[in-house]
Amino acid sequence: MTNSNAPTTFGTTAAGGPGIDGGATGVVQAIHTLDLHADVAALTAELMDIESVSGNERALADAVEEALSKLGHLQVTRNGDSLVARTSLGRAERVILAGHLDTVPLPTTPGSRGTVPSTWDGEVLYGRGATDMKGGVAVQLALAATLREPTKDVTFIFYDHEEVAAAKSGLGRLVRENRELLDADFGILLEPTNGTVEGGCNGTIRFEATTSGVAAHSARAWMGENAIHAAAPILARLAEYQPATITVDGLDYRESLNAVKIHGGTAGNVIPDQCVVEINYRFAPDKTPDQAEAHVRELLNGFEMVRTDAAAGARPGLNAPAAASFVAAVGRAPLPKYGWTDVARLSEMGIPAVNFGPGDALLAHSDNEHVHSDDIRECLAALTRWLS
Amino acid sequence: MTNSNAPTTFGTTAAGGPGIDGGATGVVQAIHTLDLHADVAALTAELMDIESVSGNERALADAVEEALSKLGHLQVTRNGDSLVARTSLGRAERVILAGHLDTVPLPTTPGSRGTVPSTWDGEVLYGRGATDMKGGVAVQLALAATLREPTKDVTFIFYDHEEVAAAKSGLGRLVRENRELLDADFGILLEPTNGTVEGGCNGTIRFEATTSGVAAHSARAWMGENAIHAAAPILARLAEYQPATITVDGLDYRESLNAVKIHGGTAGNVIPDQCVVEINYRFAPDKTPDQAEAHVRELLNGFEMVRTDAAAGARPGLNAPAAASFVAAVGRAPLPKYGWTDVARLSEMGIPAVNFGPGDALLAHSDNEHVHSDDIRECLAALTRWLS
Repeated sequence: MTNSNAPTTFGTTAAGGPGIDGGATGVVQAIHTLDLHADVAALTAELMDIESVSGNERALADAVEEALSKLGHLQVTRNGDSLVARTSLGRAERVILAGHLDTVPLPTTPGSRGTVPSTWDGEVLYGRGATDMKGGVAVQLALAATLREPTKDVTFIFYDHEEVAAAKSGLGRLVRENRELLDADFGILLEPTNGTVEGGCNGTIRFEATTSGVAAHSARAWMGENAIHAAAPILARLAEYQPATITVDGLDYRESLNAVKIHGGTAGNVIPDQCVVEINYRFAPDKTPDQAEAHVRELLNGFEMVRTDAAAGARPGLNAPAAASFVAAVGRAPLPKYGWTDVARLSEMGIPAVNFGPGDALLAHSDNEHVHSDDIRECLAALTRWLS
Repeated sequence: MTNSNAPTTFGTTAAGGPGIDGGATGVVQAIHTLDLHADVAALTAELMDIESVSGNERALADAVEEALSKLGHLQVTRNGDSLVARTSLGRAERVILAGHLDTVPLPTTPGSRGTVPSTWDGEVLYGRGATDMKGGVAVQLALAATLREPTKDVTFIFYDHEEVAAAKSGLGRLVRENRELLDADFGILLEPTNGTVEGGCNGTIRFEATTSGVAAHSARAWMGENAIHAAAPILARLAEYQPATITVDGLDYRESLNAVKIHGGTAGNVIPDQCVVEINYRFAPDKTPDQAEAHVRELLNGFEMVRTDAAAGARPGLNAPAAASFVAAVGRAPLPKYGWTDVARLSEMGIPAVNFGPGDALLAHSDNEHVHSDDIRECLAALTRWLS
C-alpha cells in the first residue's frame, strides 16, 4: 500500500511517466499508480492510503485519471478534481456509476482506527473512507477496468467536495459545466448501503423560529415580556408532533421534525427579549421543499419563522426499467434512504437514481470507520452481473 | 466642578495638604477638595465629576476621607476605599446611613448623557452616578457636615465595589474586618427610591435546569432523543406560573420566576443531547433561599436542577421604633423594594434597614442617568428633620 503520509517525491514517478504539476507551489509530485485489476478490497486499501480530505483530492484524482487513461475504451474528461469516464458502445441504455473522492477529516481521538493509512486484518479494513466511500470508488474503478463490453453504456463519475458545503460540490460543477457528459437513463451512487439498493432520499429543510419579548430587569419582571417563555408552545408542538411514514414508489420514508438548536437570553438578571429555535424537517420525497415548508408553517402557525436552508428529496425511481433490472440483479428487497445524498442531484436532472454500495452508513464519519472486504467484493459482483 | 478627566496633578494639592500616594505607580495625585456646606445638588455634581467606576474608587474615597477628617466631630476609619465615620454622643439609638462610592461603567453610546463629567441645567443633573448613587452620597456628606448634634448617634458608611460581584463588596469587607464599628439599631441605605422609604428587598436565587437526550443524525432522528423537546414542560410550567404577591411587615412584595437564558444543540443536523435553562426566582422576604429553592423544585419536579446562586432577601423591618419615627418624618407611605440591595447585608447582621434616597431606580445604569436637584434637597431635608 502506498502511504500518503510519506514525504513528497520530487522528479519523475515510480510509474516511469513524467510527473505533473503538483499545484501552485510548482512542485512535481509523484502520481500513485493504482492496480485496477487487483482484488477490489486491496484496491480499496490503496485508495484509502491516499489521503483526500475535502479540498485535498488532487493526488487521488491524479491517480484515478492516470489509471483510467491507460484503459483505452473510456473517454476521460477532467474538470478540477472531478473525472467523467464514458463508454460509447451505442447501447440502448446508459447508466451512471458515481462516487465522491473526498472524505471527512481524519479523527483526532487517540486510538481511533479511522485513520490514514488504513489497517487491514485480511477481513476488515479500517481507516478514513472505508465506508464513505473508497470501497464504492474501488468498485467503480474495478468495473471500469474489467467491463470492456458492458450491456449498457456506462458513465463513471468521480468527484470532489461532497463532504462540504453543497456550493463546492464537484458533481454540482460537472452539472453546470459538463452537462452534455451526464445524460443517462438511470444512476447508481455507490454510497454505503450495506449492499442493499436504497432508493431516493428524504429532503431536508431548516427554519429559525423566533419569539420576541421586552427586556427588563428580572427583579421587576412584570415590566418585561419573556421571549423564552413565549417559545414554550413551539417546543411543546414539536415534542407532541408524530412524524409520518410515507410510501413513495413502494418504499416507506420515515420523516422527522426536530428542534436542533435553541438559544435565548443575555444575562442572569435580564428578562430575555429574544429566543431562537432552529428546526430541521426531514421530509419524504413525495413533497417539494415548498410543500414541506407549508407543512411546518401550519404546525407552528402564529410564530415568526424564516426558512434558512433546503434541499429537495429524491423519489426512489424504482419503476424505471433499468432500476427494476438492477434490483433483480442485486436480489434483495430495496429500502428507503434516509440521509440526503447526491441521488437528489441526479433526480433533479431527471435521472432516476439509487444508492448502492459496500459498508454501513452509520459508520461513515466515525472514529471507527471500517468495511468488510467481502462486502466490497459482493457489491462488485452484483454490478458485474447486472452489466455483463 | 472638578473635572476628573483632567490630567493627573503632581505634587501638593490645591487644598494645600500634602498629596497622598496615588497607587502602585508611586505617582502623587491631587486630592479633590469637596465643599460639604455647598448646596447638596452642587455637591452631587462635584462627586459625579470624580469618575469612580468599580475598582477606581480611590480618588473619590480620598476626597471623602479628607473632607470628613476636617470635621472634627466624627471618628473616621478607612479600610481600602471604604470609610466609616461615627458620632459618639452617647445617644439612646444609633443609625447607619450608608452609600456606595462606585458606579457602573460609563455609557459607550454616542450622545448618551450619563457621562463623566456631569452636565447640569440648574434643575436636572445628568451623568453617571446621578441616581446610583452620588445624590445619596452627597446627602450623607451634607448631613455629616451640618448635623453636629444629631438626636441619634450616626454611623456614616461609604463603600467601594457595590456594582460588581458580591465577594468584592466594600461593605462585606467592613462586616468581616470592622464589625465593631457597625453596631446600630436601624439602617438607611441611600439608594434611589424617589424619596420614598422602600423597605427590605426580595431575595434572588438562580438554577440551571438541564434535560438530557441522545445525540443522533437528524436524518435518523428516531435513533436519538431530543433534549430540547424534553425542555418543553419546563418552559410551559414557567410560562403558566402565576407569581405571588406576599405581604411582609405591611408591605406587598411582588415575586417573579423566569427563564433568563436557554441553550441547547450543537449543529443543524444533530439531535440535541442537552438543553440548559437558567432560571431566576425573585422571592419575597418571608422565605429563606432554601425555602425559595424548595418552591421552585416543587414546581419543576422531575427535572434535574442545580442551584447556582442565591442571596437572601430582607424583611422591611418597619416595626422597629427608629424605622417608625423615620417613616413619620418622611411623611409618605413606605413601599416594598424589589431589587436586591445591601439592606439585606444589614438585615443579616440583625440591623433593620430601609432604602431611602433621591432619584429614580429605573434610571440607574442607563445611558440617560439623571436626577432632579430638588429631589436631592428634599431627601436631605427629610433626614435633617428626623435627626435634628
